[in-house]
Amino acid sequence: MTSLANSPAWKDFCGAVKTSEIGAHALRILDAAGLSVDLSTQRHSADVETAGKQLLKAQGFESARTQLFNGSPINWTENRAAWHTALRATEPPVAVAELIKHERERMLSFVDQANAKNQYRNVVHLGIGGSDWGPRLVVESLTGLTGRRTMRFASNVDAHAITAALDGLDPHDTLIIIASKSFTTTESLANAACATDWLRAGGVKRPLDQFVAITANVKAARDYGIDNDHIFQFWDWVGGRYSLWSSIGLPIALGLGADVFAALLAGAAEMDEHFLTAPIESNVPVQMALSGVANRSVLGYASFALCPYDARLKHLIPWLQQLEMESLGKSTTRDGDTLDVPSSPAVWGMPGTDSQHTFFQWLHQDNIGAPVDFILCATPDHRYNRHHRLLVANCLAQRAALWQGKSYERALEEVQRTEKDPVKASILAQHRVHPGGRPSTLIVMPRLDAKSLGALLALYEHKVFTQGVIWGINPFDQWGVEFGKQLAGDIERRLDALGSDPEVSPYDPSTAYWVKKLAGS
Amino acid sequence: MTSLANSPAWKDFCGAVKTSEIGAHALRILDAAGLSVDLSTQRHSADVETAGKQLLKAQGFESARTQLFNGSPINWTENRAAWHTALRATEPPVAVAELIKHERERMLSFVDQANAKNQYRNVVHLGIGGSDWGPRLVVESLTGLTGRRTMRFASNVDAHAITAALDGLDPHDTLIIIASKSFTTTESLANAACATDWLRAGGVKRPLDQFVAITANVKAARDYGIDNDHIFQFWDWVGGRYSLWSSIGLPIALGLGADVFAALLAGAAEMDEHFLTAPIESNVPVQMALSGVANRSVLGYASFALCPYDARLKHLIPWLQQLEMESLGKSTTRDGDTLDVPSSPAVWGMPGTDSQHTFFQWLHQDNIGAPVDFILCATPDHRYNRHHRLLVANCLAQRAALWQGKSYERALEEVQRTEKDPVKASILAQHRVHPGGRPSTLIVMPRLDAKSLGALLALYEHKVFTQGVIWGINPFDQWGVEFGKQLAGDIERRLDALGSDPEVSPYDPSTAYWVKKLAGS
Repeated sequence: MTSLANSPAWKDFCGAVKTSEIGAHALRILDAAGLSVDLSTQRHSADVETAGKQLLKAQGFESARTQLFNGSPINWTENRAAWHTALRATEPPVAVAELIKHERERMLSFVDQANAKNQYRNVVHLGIGGSDWGPRLVVESLTGLTGRRTMRFASNVDAHAITAALDGLDPHDTLIIIASKSFTTTESLANAACATDWLRAGGVKRPLDQFVAITANVKAARDYGIDNDHIFQFWDWVGGRYSLWSSIGLPIALGLGADVFAALLAGAAEMDEHFLTAPIESNVPVQMALSGVANRSVLGYASFALCPYDARLKHLIPWLQQLEMESLGKSTTRDGDTLDVPSSPAVWGMPGTDSQHTFFQWLHQDNIGAPVDFILCATPDHRYNRHHRLLVANCLAQRAALWQGKSYERALEEVQRTEKDPVKASILAQHRVHPGGRPSTLIVMPRLDAKSLGALLALYEHKVFTQGVIWGINPFDQWGVEFGKQLAGDIERRLDALGSDPEVSPYDPSTAYWVKKLAGS
Repeated sequence: MTSLANSPAWKDFCGAVKTSEIGAHALRILDAAGLSVDLSTQRHSADVETAGKQLLKAQGFESARTQLFNGSPINWTENRAAWHTALRATEPPVAVAELIKHERERMLSFVDQANAKNQYRNVVHLGIGGSDWGPRLVVESLTGLTGRRTMRFASNVDAHAITAALDGLDPHDTLIIIASKSFTTTESLANAACATDWLRAGGVKRPLDQFVAITANVKAARDYGIDNDHIFQFWDWVGGRYSLWSSIGLPIALGLGADVFAALLAGAAEMDEHFLTAPIESNVPVQMALSGVANRSVLGYASFALCPYDARLKHLIPWLQQLEMESLGKSTTRDGDTLDVPSSPAVWGMPGTDSQHTFFQWLHQDNIGAPVDFILCATPDHRYNRHHRLLVANCLAQRAALWQGKSYERALEEVQRTEKDPVKASILAQHRVHPGGRPSTLIVMPRLDAKSLGALLALYEHKVFTQGVIWGINPFDQWGVEFGKQLAGDIERRLDALGSDPEVSPYDPSTAYWVKKLAGS
């Protein structure tokens, strides 16, 4: 059995991290693709740097990175490439260059035509997970800058979602996009059926003419009745959660413009280049990955919080949750062994300053807390300077407070201003102590535009990939998503079959009870 | 020094939990205020039940509960009551009955007049944290049923939030609500300034006439220039995160109707009654609290996930994050000692089925995972029966899968259908194993209406209160929110003062660097 925990490189890395400190080193700000990433408030030292390099070497990082970019079947449990970098490369790999060019031209020509005809003032995008979060994040982050159509997204199979998404739109000027890699996704097809009903009820004679499919299963889309010219393809070597760079980006081009989509790809390509060529010690995705592994596997932080100090980036949180937790939320290594170090933190978060009034109490004074990724845009897209100054000040203040903490002595001094009883003052001061020493990363974007956003997303993609390499797990499969789907199909049939005998349920008593109780509801 | 870890009741509870199992017991479904709460998939046993009762007794639960309801200063670090239950009581305590009645009548009469005059088709609510999540959650959850005005919420100091909230509204028919307990909240006052500019730019001669203040600091609202008739009060004995039951509920009454607000209060009052009177073993908030403590402090789960299977409940997640993490994210006990057991899980989540395509991979196959609270509505408010059946099926399936898991043998059988090489098949099967045994709670609401929602919110409030009692911490203060505010004020002044010498910064080198770099940006 292979063991990461017992490998010399791992032991050295743990030792180095445990003896390192926050703030014991000089300012550590790394630049990549226009982003500045400040790792000064992560644990670091010369030993950590050396041990990190050795760990990457022991885990075969360079070879894995080469395989990622050259289209090797690095998704080994499904024997596939994970070639999302090809989609944004300035010069895509020859093996897929023509495919990518052809499909992108088809998609952009569809957008051009729609624009020329002033068609589809409304677009309703039906996808879920990887077919949803990426385009939703980009469209909702950048709409204020360049929005040109009403864009709605419905993902959940709860029909309250699709009914809200369609509400108030003109059926005669609405495009429905079905985005599903397999073209069998329950949620997206169920919502497409609602949309068809809605178009028909609105007087549209041929609803399918207003549908577009984005899929790796062209045949199924054709069988559904969608016209060839309205089907845009991507391929099995594009993972769902890495698919926004493919035809799945159609709503981005429709809603924000082809130039915005191009800038997004260019930003990601620049980060790819950085990830491929920057030395390990200044390679931003790699250094963020090493901090992430140190925080989770060595220091024991079970989760981390993402706090973009920009209200427009709220969908970055679910996007990153999927990227991190679906990619890394597994514990079987390449050889089929169980990974023997803690891995994959839970990811959660909220834009600042809302987050300060929601869970920063916990980040400061829980007995453990969690590391934080702060994101800040140097220049806003509004004219309220004081607001922006307050936003920046709050971000920097929270980060400083997490690291620096507040001592008992300082707290006591504060309390004594109003509480004269020394025993009471001492107790109250304990309640105001902040332990400090809590790690964080600060990412500064020059501005929230398509290029910076593309770079940011690629940064996290490569960070997650690198963590997968270090932990020895495959970040590109998702077997844990399949099992629930199987059970759901069976339970759905039982809920539908009112006459079936619940006594013969193969489920536990509680599931059997609810199936019986909720059948036909 | 007091120690929870070393107390006999705690040791007994730990022992009982560790030897208990999921599914070893009979169906365990408890009812409260119209909600059914299924705890069958939490660890339980007769020993856990007994030890739980003893633990509550040792921690003074009954007396604390009495103090909560009778207005004793149970928020001991601030020497205040936490009397949110009085706001929804059928017969409020005499000490505050008149206050509550008077202020509620004033508020509802304001709503009546606005309705009678068909005034304020648009309402923009400016609050943050406790002054925002509660009304936002209720309005956004129930708007589809009863919405009667365009309701917008802006909380973040990032001015992209307020500019988006005002976008497209008619300034002449828009009411601006400033909701701030202290009436000094930076975010809400900064956003109020934007709203004033916007009204004025829209041709409104006397902007303040279209403002309402909801606050515990009436004088400050008056000094701001808001008319007495437009100021609605609440009191220092209403905590921010428990304030939606007070005048902070104004947007609920404006947006959904006074009857909806009344039903919300009635649902919460019914849960209060249950919490006060139900025996410990069938007291739902108490039993949920005991499961929460077992999961966090005994079994070591560092976080839990909230997955309402209703897209309308998405704001329940930030609301609960604040309630749990701001109330319990602290580690100093009543006596000023450090709490010596792990407490306060991080809370995160997402509505199902989106969550299944985002992080359920991690819940199933991470080597640790996290407990889940599932919430389901028996009857939806749309006409798509198949959608609802799929939603219910998915919820039940995920819960069953988390508990039951998938064995290596079963996974191998699946893999062997396509993979004939036995070595490869064995490795691939390992990747499909689900350990199972993962705890969850299922809450079934008859329907998402105001009464059920009120009961649900009060359920979580009392669950959190009970956990605070067990851990011996004060759930009603938030000292960790204050410190960051102090630092932010100082940094903001430095960002503004372009001429100041950054060399004399009292901050760490990284903070000093960014203050200098971003000053005047």
